[in-house]
Amino acid sequence: MNYYAKPVARLIDELSKLPGIGPKTAQRLAFHLLNAAPEAAAGLARAIEEARRTVGHCRVCGNFTDEDPCFICRDERRRGDVICVVERPRDVVAMEKARSFKGLYHVLHGAISPMEGIGPEQLRVRELLRRLEDGKVKEIILATNPNVEGDATALYLSGLLKPLGLLVTRIAHGLPVGADLEYADEVTLCKALEGRREMK
Amino acid sequence: MNYYAKPVARLIDELSKLPGIGPKTAQRLAFHLLNAAPEAAAGLARAIEEARRTVGHCRVCGNFTDEDPCFICRDERRRGDVICVVERPRDVVAMEKARSFKGLYHVLHGAISPMEGIGPEQLRVRELLRRLEDGKVKEIILATNPNVEGDATALYLSGLLKPLGLLVTRIAHGLPVGADLEYADEVTLCKALEGRREMK
Repeated sequence: MNYYAKPVARLIDELSKLPGIGPKTAQRLAFHLLNAAPEAAAGLARAIEEARRTVGHCRVCGNFTDEDPCFICRDERRRGDVICVVERPRDVVAMEKARSFKGLYHVLHGAISPMEGIGPEQLRVRELLRRLEDGKVKEIILATNPNVEGDATALYLSGLLKPLGLLVTRIAHGLPVGADLEYADEVTLCKALEGRREMK
Repeated sequence: MNYYAKPVARLIDELSKLPGIGPKTAQRLAFHLLNAAPEAAAGLARAIEEARRTVGHCRVCGNFTDEDPCFICRDERRRGDVICVVERPRDVVAMEKARSFKGLYHVLHGAISPMEGIGPEQLRVRELLRRLEDGKVKEIILATNPNVEGDATALYLSGLLKPLGLLVTRIAHGLPVGADLEYADEVTLCKALEGRREMK
């Protein structure tokens, strides 16, 4: 049975393809767009279209950008001797929000996952090696996610990069700030113990 | 501080104007649209643009439609002698999904709310009265929401329509099916008692 006019049904259908948007939310969003000022809906349509047209991957770091190289790679105030390797563009945003890293990034666009048929060839590993050729980079921080795929990727990259004479580090695993020991899972607790440091 | 390329920031900004979409979700949706196949993003942009261009209010009932009158008003299998008055297009969808009403609708596009400066003039009341002029309609079901504004609107419309010799009814208030008496609020329980009917 059909409850909507065709263009409304199509809009709801397109919206419900978005991650985390179920049919109910899609209907609410569609009706909002139909009720809102025409400029509001047009603004969203234009923003989608423009972003898809102008945004690509930075040829250096692989992050989303409309200028190539991206504004992070071009920023001369950043340290050029350390690269933080992450899985996704969203991880760059997370790191930037933490405001404690002032080097450059490298986005792999994924992690090694034999289950999904993703090996190193599918990731931007070759591009990373090319960035190391001029010898300016001294440290590689592996900031892939602390899960099976991210750890496997870090292990692989570490094996690949250490022979080049680079300092290769992995971000720390441990208890999140503000967490309760009582509710921490055992693996995290083990990692937190392993990674303990002397009090200063 | 700026974490995104400009067109990405603009897309996130437009997405976060949608109801119930916070900045975090907006970022996830934007990155999804940038990662998805180009057709997927273009499809959404086109659906928004097309819906805004082709969809308006049905001149008879006020529901969203791309044809005027809408497919419900034109459906000759529906009863033309009863009109169900609702606040919003989404209420038409809710009623249609319940599949027990086979008459016509009238969408007010709001409810009386002195707090927000919305009186009967801002609602599609005049259009409702015009629909009653030919005398074909015998019953008006007031299905505005069971809250202060909806009740006030129902009361107002009832006072307006009863003198015209119409049967004016209000949808029942009571316990939702599957609810627990223990957890029902007092007002609902009172309404449920008031609305009690003889067992058959």
